[in-house]
Amino acid sequence: MSWLEVPADHPFGLHNLPYGSFRTGGESRFRVGVAVGDHVLDVGTVAADLLPARAALFDDGDLDRLLAAGPAAWHHVRAAVTGWLADDGVRDVVERALHPLALVELRMPFSVADFVDFYASEHHATNIGRMFRPDSEPLTPNWKHLPIGYHGRAGTVVVSGTSVIRPCGQRRTPEGEVVFGPSTRLDLEAEVGFVVGAGSTIGSPVPRAAFADHVFGVCLVNDWSARDLQAWEYVPLGPFLGKSFATSVSPWVVPLAALSAARGTPPTREPRPLPYLDDTDDDEQWGLDLTMQVRLNGHLVSSPPFRTMYWTAAQQLAHLTANGACLRPGDLFASGTVSGPEPGQRGSLIELSWGGKEPIELPDGTIRSFLEDGDEVVITATAPGPDGTIVGFGEVRGTVAPAREQP
Amino acid sequence: MSWLEVPADHPFGLHNLPYGSFRTGGESRFRVGVAVGDHVLDVGTVAADLLPARAALFDDGDLDRLLAAGPAAWHHVRAAVTGWLADDGVRDVVERALHPLALVELRMPFSVADFVDFYASEHHATNIGRMFRPDSEPLTPNWKHLPIGYHGRAGTVVVSGTSVIRPCGQRRTPEGEVVFGPSTRLDLEAEVGFVVGAGSTIGSPVPRAAFADHVFGVCLVNDWSARDLQAWEYVPLGPFLGKSFATSVSPWVVPLAALSAARGTPPTREPRPLPYLDDTDDDEQWGLDLTMQVRLNGHLVSSPPFRTMYWTAAQQLAHLTANGACLRPGDLFASGTVSGPEPGQRGSLIELSWGGKEPIELPDGTIRSFLEDGDEVVITATAPGPDGTIVGFGEVRGTVAPAREQP
Repeated sequence: MSWLEVPADHPFGLHNLPYGSFRTGGESRFRVGVAVGDHVLDVGTVAADLLPARAALFDDGDLDRLLAAGPAAWHHVRAAVTGWLADDGVRDVVERALHPLALVELRMPFSVADFVDFYASEHHATNIGRMFRPDSEPLTPNWKHLPIGYHGRAGTVVVSGTSVIRPCGQRRTPEGEVVFGPSTRLDLEAEVGFVVGAGSTIGSPVPRAAFADHVFGVCLVNDWSARDLQAWEYVPLGPFLGKSFATSVSPWVVPLAALSAARGTPPTREPRPLPYLDDTDDDEQWGLDLTMQVRLNGHLVSSPPFRTMYWTAAQQLAHLTANGACLRPGDLFASGTVSGPEPGQRGSLIELSWGGKEPIELPDGTIRSFLEDGDEVVITATAPGPDGTIVGFGEVRGTVAPAREQP
Repeated sequence: MSWLEVPADHPFGLHNLPYGSFRTGGESRFRVGVAVGDHVLDVGTVAADLLPARAALFDDGDLDRLLAAGPAAWHHVRAAVTGWLADDGVRDVVERALHPLALVELRMPFSVADFVDFYASEHHATNIGRMFRPDSEPLTPNWKHLPIGYHGRAGTVVVSGTSVIRPCGQRRTPEGEVVFGPSTRLDLEAEVGFVVGAGSTIGSPVPRAAFADHVFGVCLVNDWSARDLQAWEYVPLGPFLGKSFATSVSPWVVPLAALSAARGTPPTREPRPLPYLDDTDDDEQWGLDLTMQVRLNGHLVSSPPFRTMYWTAAQQLAHLTANGACLRPGDLFASGTVSGPEPGQRGSLIELSWGGKEPIELPDGTIRSFLEDGDEVVITATAPGPDGTIVGFGEVRGTVAPAREQP
């Protein structure tokens, strides 16, 4: 137990302890923080006193050094923070480093190295396939053999709260005319992101069993998508401008160590994948029981269940590195849109409105097929923690700003 | 004229002055160098004496600070270096900072932020389309409307001279079986890379006319490709593991300012592209008259002409940012494989051997469809400089190392 009173069902309870980068009002410098209850702990300041051997990891005010330090450092720091919060003897020192969560400003917590986006929900891929390629099988022949993914733009990953400017681009009208202008089919994608800490060497694949040695933690991702731009550009080399204008992430990175109670068995794969992907007999499988909530202008529009994802993050990491590609601290890979089998579990508007053919009505009477200017999207998630607690992921929030006039 | 004797036809003549990062034997620290003739000028050391206002740009021993400093700094430093080499009064200081090019070690000259690869050769795209999609039109309907591109893996961009380990991965055999193992169709791609210096703001597209305000210079790129992995994985989200194992770049970045005499009119585009891409009436078009040479084990196998590229780098940059995506210093975007209309101008083995159906015979009697272990690929290029001089790009060199045993 802790001298700090945190309700057992608090999303930032004592078993969670996610990391972020914060500053309090008027400060110019950001610091590394750990969210606990309704507070942020300035972990670098406390470490200077109580964990000097690791204090330098927090000097830059972001997670970059901690990520690169590797799993021994991650576990050491987490155990120390847990200890501080349990130890009455250090309460004074630690308490002085607590700041009310409601009063801090949060920024992008780490420098994104490479950003990869996967496509691991069978339900999402099937829905999209039906809409984008109505004359073919919805799943491409490779889909059940490998976790399909592609590289996205690391430089436009932004933290929750950043406005997303409606992108302009080329699209083909239903009449076949190619025009340029603001996207008319701006969408959200509810995803889960995995933050790589420890890097790897080029030429040395990272097997599934080494997943937790390389992946530091988990955040939420909204992979904003301009469906009209994407549909026109994506053959043959994949999504580009339809995605690269912005990708939003939650400001808190939940350590993998906080998710032990959320681990579970992923869906059965048929056909059984090749050995480097086949986790059937693994001691540690990486199905994760996160339940997500997607809210549009305050209204819950979807509750995607992450446990239904066909490919796990450990399989994705094994695939990503199977060709010898190396990892760097700060690599971010996202799951792809999380959609469950039920209509109310779809993680994008293009699925919820079935390509705009079945617009959704919100409780306030407004109608949406895609996002309108001023719309606010908030994605949240929780997972089971130990002893009946819950692990919250905070939120990734974004409001659509109108397209800019073109030069 | 200069006190330093450099032949007028030297690829690193006095009008070129490309930048790299070098160290001499036994040194631990790398420094910023400018290649001039058969020497490398330690520009930071000279700047400390003769250009103190800019000397800090070279403190890290790579190009990162110079790139970020923007065009005024680029022109200031370039003018200064040119001046030093012409001024007998500073000869002593400058001469002491010259190192024989043959004796230096070169590393990756800048930190790659995002890496984008385009697909801008009509001849290459047509050839690939015929081979990958024999039942469709070779060019997809979007190809002449926009410069197709995708994001690649920045973390596996390596400098010339780095061995390239044959990647493993999934492929589908002609019999339809899905297997995992070393790529059997490892290829090269001869490309030209554009290095972004000055960044831009999210939401603010960079028009063609601002190209030279953002792009610092040009290097050579070998975008190694595992065609068997690529063919199996690339539908629907584009190339991923077939490319991400390694991309090699030349160690010298030729400043855009050195290429004024190489500028020219790009091919006529039909249909005329949308206004943000239409350079027909531009004062400054960015067709570039580079001639490339691709050598395999010392034998010239292709001479791709860059001036035949359908889309220019200025159009690519305008497209890349048209959706509001921002640029960061160190962004690298490559042209896509450079192939001319003639068979001897094709910039990849899959084209030269027509998918392996017409293997090429090298002058030493060896036969190649794709790369074998131990093969060495060297790509070079030259462009016209002012007053009949030539501008050389050095080389991007790589040798294929055998696949590693899998974990």
